[in-house]
Amino acid sequence: MPPLGPADTIRILVATDSHVGYEERDPIRKDDSWQSFDEVMCLAKEQDVDMVLLAGDLFHDNKPSRKSMFQVMRSLRMNCLGEKPCELEMLSDANDIFHGAFSHVNYEDPDINVAIPVFSIHGNHDDPTGDGHYCSLDLLQVSGLLNYFGRIPESDNIHIKPLLLQKGQTKLALYGMSNVRDERLFRTFRDGKVHFYKPGTQQNDWFNLMAVHQNHHAHTETGYLPENFLPEFMDLVVWGHEHECIIDPRYNPEMLFHVMQPGSSVATSLVPGEAVPKHVAILNVTGRDFKVEKHRIKSVRPFVARELVLATDKRFKSLARMKDNRQQVTIELVKVVEKLIEEAQQEWLAIQDEEIDEKDIPLPLVRLKVEYTAPEGGKFDCENPQRFSNRFVGKVANVNDVVVFYRKKTGGTKKANGDKEMPEDAVLAAMSADTVRIDKVVKEFLTAQSLKILPQAPFGDAVVQFVDKDDKHAMEIFVSDSLTRQVKEMLTLDDFDEQDIDNVMERQKAKLEKQFLDGTVKRSTKAGRYHPRPPTWDSDLDGEWEDQPAALVRDDVDGDEDATPVPAGRRGRAAANSDNESIAASAPAKKAPAKRAPAKRAPAKPKAASAKKAPARGRKKAAAPSDDEDDDVVMLDDDPPPKAQPRRAAATRAGRQTQLSFSQQPKTQTPTVELSDDEISDDDDAFEPMTSSKRR
Amino acid sequence: MPPLGPADTIRILVATDSHVGYEERDPIRKDDSWQSFDEVMCLAKEQDVDMVLLAGDLFHDNKPSRKSMFQVMRSLRMNCLGEKPCELEMLSDANDIFHGAFSHVNYEDPDINVAIPVFSIHGNHDDPTGDGHYCSLDLLQVSGLLNYFGRIPESDNIHIKPLLLQKGQTKLALYGMSNVRDERLFRTFRDGKVHFYKPGTQQNDWFNLMAVHQNHHAHTETGYLPENFLPEFMDLVVWGHEHECIIDPRYNPEMLFHVMQPGSSVATSLVPGEAVPKHVAILNVTGRDFKVEKHRIKSVRPFVARELVLATDKRFKSLARMKDNRQQVTIELVKVVEKLIEEAQQEWLAIQDEEIDEKDIPLPLVRLKVEYTAPEGGKFDCENPQRFSNRFVGKVANVNDVVVFYRKKTGGTKKANGDKEMPEDAVLAAMSADTVRIDKVVKEFLTAQSLKILPQAPFGDAVVQFVDKDDKHAMEIFVSDSLTRQVKEMLTLDDFDEQDIDNVMERQKAKLEKQFLDGTVKRSTKAGRYHPRPPTWDSDLDGEWEDQPAALVRDDVDGDEDATPVPAGRRGRAAANSDNESIAASAPAKKAPAKRAPAKRAPAKPKAASAKKAPARGRKKAAAPSDDEDDDVVMLDDDPPPKAQPRRAAATRAGRQTQLSFSQQPKTQTPTVELSDDEISDDDDAFEPMTSSKRR
Repeated sequence: MPPLGPADTIRILVATDSHVGYEERDPIRKDDSWQSFDEVMCLAKEQDVDMVLLAGDLFHDNKPSRKSMFQVMRSLRMNCLGEKPCELEMLSDANDIFHGAFSHVNYEDPDINVAIPVFSIHGNHDDPTGDGHYCSLDLLQVSGLLNYFGRIPESDNIHIKPLLLQKGQTKLALYGMSNVRDERLFRTFRDGKVHFYKPGTQQNDWFNLMAVHQNHHAHTETGYLPENFLPEFMDLVVWGHEHECIIDPRYNPEMLFHVMQPGSSVATSLVPGEAVPKHVAILNVTGRDFKVEKHRIKSVRPFVARELVLATDKRFKSLARMKDNRQQVTIELVKVVEKLIEEAQQEWLAIQDEEIDEKDIPLPLVRLKVEYTAPEGGKFDCENPQRFSNRFVGKVANVNDVVVFYRKKTGGTKKANGDKEMPEDAVLAAMSADTVRIDKVVKEFLTAQSLKILPQAPFGDAVVQFVDKDDKHAMEIFVSDSLTRQVKEMLTLDDFDEQDIDNVMERQKAKLEKQFLDGTVKRSTKAGRYHPRPPTWDSDLDGEWEDQPAALVRDDVDGDEDATPVPAGRRGRAAANSDNESIAASAPAKKAPAKRAPAKRAPAKPKAASAKKAPARGRKKAAAPSDDEDDDVVMLDDDPPPKAQPRRAAATRAGRQTQLSFSQQPKTQTPTVELSDDEISDDDDAFEPMTSSKRR
Repeated sequence: MPPLGPADTIRILVATDSHVGYEERDPIRKDDSWQSFDEVMCLAKEQDVDMVLLAGDLFHDNKPSRKSMFQVMRSLRMNCLGEKPCELEMLSDANDIFHGAFSHVNYEDPDINVAIPVFSIHGNHDDPTGDGHYCSLDLLQVSGLLNYFGRIPESDNIHIKPLLLQKGQTKLALYGMSNVRDERLFRTFRDGKVHFYKPGTQQNDWFNLMAVHQNHHAHTETGYLPENFLPEFMDLVVWGHEHECIIDPRYNPEMLFHVMQPGSSVATSLVPGEAVPKHVAILNVTGRDFKVEKHRIKSVRPFVARELVLATDKRFKSLARMKDNRQQVTIELVKVVEKLIEEAQQEWLAIQDEEIDEKDIPLPLVRLKVEYTAPEGGKFDCENPQRFSNRFVGKVANVNDVVVFYRKKTGGTKKANGDKEMPEDAVLAAMSADTVRIDKVVKEFLTAQSLKILPQAPFGDAVVQFVDKDDKHAMEIFVSDSLTRQVKEMLTLDDFDEQDIDNVMERQKAKLEKQFLDGTVKRSTKAGRYHPRPPTWDSDLDGEWEDQPAALVRDDVDGDEDATPVPAGRRGRAAANSDNESIAASAPAKKAPAKRAPAKRAPAKPKAASAKKAPARGRKKAAAPSDDEDDDVVMLDDDPPPKAQPRRAAATRAGRQTQLSFSQQPKTQTPTVELSDDEISDDDDAFEPMTSSKRR
């Protein structure tokens, strides 16, 4: 075979979490989000990439404003349409991937010239809701501007089929799993109900790329997606949802794949993770190898976050014993902030291509977090934080929350070493209305009331829908649904004592409450579709943090259904520092690197992938035989992630014979990874050294 | 010149008021609106028309649901994109017409194959609101699916430039004026601030077609658009907004143009006008002649409306003196309704192309309006209307309002001759929450309160925005805006007596109130854009009807600014039955059928229209010189409608020398009109006999 060259390189711009619409009503920041998205799309055009991959939360609001939708459509049409034919060949059956009216990839539409196809999964912000279960990406898809993939029609029975794309000799299998509430997804994985499919032929030739949009950190025991739930045949996982930009792929030595977390292109909270310079990546896939170019997003509003412990800072500690020190403390704090502003401006200037007049530098975001716990006998008298912040009107973009004061409850000074050790959750919760969990408010409110008919948990859920998803009809549906259930239940009672009606209603309410929490009663919509979501689910960073650092992983290798959860390290990486042997022990699939018998269906339909170059669709092409559907892919079933596969389930479900076949793919061609660090790597405590090739 | 043939015929599908999204949450009717729109779009494709013209209210809701937007996008992409090249040549400068990111007509986009361009103005339901002043049509335009024209950036200074289209020898000048609140538009016309532009060359060769979306009937003195406000050089006016289908063009002998009112494609209120069979038209324009083909919309849910006066009906009148006649009356009424259901079904079956099983006939809409005034000494005892209606669950689509009971206040029986004589407004207002005017409710509510700071009229306006336009931020903006004004005002006071603060605030509030009503204070949005709307404006049929039948027209021919309004006939047609002479007297422009000196700008830039065949835009074509802008068009200015043009305004405004030039176009080629009545004309009291050619 001739060596692979540029004609065999698939160039993919990878970005995520644009959150278009974020702060769009703020007089200063209103255009930030769409402008950064636009910069990313312009970069795609300028860099002449083959495709764009987005990993969710393109929009900030579930129902984006017209302005947001307009700007996104404009950016897409402006940059992604064009005469240059897209060089990617679509090898899989698009009907498996794209639902809806136009079930083909947009660049194969005979009536639209798409030069750069954009592929996106949905995130937790722009997920489908309401009648017909549409999301914003459906509108982009139906207008031909974007390819929405990785849909999750059922969150407790997930089938993930790849898009198969080829350019020259390089074959790309693109997997997508749109956002599912973390706890639910964890359960679905644990129950062995997440099914991955693989190309039926030449399995070793594919570069396997996957996009997810889930918690990366173990917010709660089950409130995240452990990396080791994903199949190890992946080569690279693009992780959406987490806003910190960790653009350099991090190698997971247990799973033998890399993970790239591009982060958001706009800061939606003023935490240090959002202050990490925002980048997108251009991923160059050649054969099984990949190379990453990083690109700084230059339109991002400058943002610096700093933490300050007054008791240990030389400028402040002497002030603690001064009487009435408020003025002095304030003067010193102002100096600190002014320095941060200067720093933000300089950083922004440094990355611009052209010389910029100082007045044209965007007002920066500045966040100074001040711990003002004073030493014994002393006191730091701090100004009201909002008044303090207002001193910087015209100098910063966030004029109401430049500073946050907090005190250590336990006493003693706190290490001020930056990003990772802060009690972010508690501080954030106290600080901003953004992090209020609506269902908790409802719960608090309802404890003071006495509800007779309406169950509380679904009530909270309905309010969350009403508020967070802007679903105007959520309450109406909830009330009428609950009433209907009550009435139906009461009508079934045989000897119904009217005197006892209160008790009956109370019992029924309690029953509904319990069923809802169990997940057996699901939210209904008027259209009769069910979108199950337990009321404890939520978005972004506002999960219920717990102090329990242990993630739940199972160490049972044979799928014993009685396996007990075992704490296994915070990020779900069981024994990350141990050797291969111990990893294999906790991940049984890895025990068999040698070829096993192929899965049952694979040999039955041994079609070459190249025979599939003309997928059925559109008016221009002949329809493919309908039994083609599964030719490209072999059902892999769900072994790798659910390490404790219950036996009973395995025994009774049809198709279990294909179990474990995913592990039969030897990673024969050891892919090489190259990083073009064209700029200085950013300080990042969390960055882990990357191995340059996969271990075997 | 060779005779004109099909190659010179522009085929235009004309439809309007699809109201997609109407009743989309009703379990029965939820798909009605988008299905009828889809039928219309399919017809456009099937009939292979050259273009589609929509006259507003494509969407029912200002912020359509995702489902509605999805369905509209789907229908447009499915039917309007295609390989067949659009044969229309665009001769005007698209920058004059299409604002926004892609200021060209969609079929000239190099990256989208548009076979059938759709042109639409906005209506009162889908008008621009909120930050950035976007409307739903902007989204359709930016995605390349529709051409949104007839924008009104300023409602008190309106410039209407035509789209110039040519096919073969036929030249079409397409004018659009999107909805403006009727009172405001009336004033703008009266003030001489509506400016029409005409092609600069070959003025006699153009077929002048205009789309408007306004009240057609004189709801109030100034609450409508009189036909004679429009320039008489029009050949055909397509009138949106009114839902009754009057598809056959009606000739206006005063204005010498035809008016076609296609009506809505879904019944949004159960009045007889909506029961008129729904049609769209295919308008065939050849040279200056036009021909209309009518097409019945077959997917429209069957609807019959009937009025019944019990006292004069032979089945009921004898029951009046029967004691406890409720059961008898109910039995008879049920029979009437059952007959209406049968009638509706038969009518629906009759228009279907295929044989339909009875169970597949859609449940009909039935409205029986019952006047139950009893003769002296008698009584009709009627059942609760909702309970009565509920008897028809499973048989009708509107199970809650099949019947409406009303009594004559003045006594005496009422003529039951059908559509035109009913006191619709009163009945409707009493009957349905749809017709409640929010600002009136607010007003009522506020009279019982004492507001100190917030002015009431803008308060009502803000609530209307909040409710009708789903603008979540309307209240917030209103409050912060009012407070700001108050504070600013108080700060300007020199000797400010704090004791007097109440009075000062009260005065300021009164001032704001007055300014708002005068239109000098306009609603502000956070983005700083002003969208002036007096609080008395409103939508559809819920204008404030008054008994005063006279429309306000001016009979002053020379533009004396002291001219006094003179009542001039209900529809604004001054002396419609008088001869040409008297028409000319009230419409001075008509006095000059002979050619006058051309308008000043016309000779200065005597370009042939054909020289404009390659409009500037896109990447494929060279940019046209930027000074081209006005070449195609001559500013006509605003004489014809504002018959009493104030002298002062005329004298002080630049460019007034072009005044009156519109009237220099002799209608030399008498256009012939042909109607292909391919079905029996519907009974319609209001239909006026049409002359077959224009009078001169």
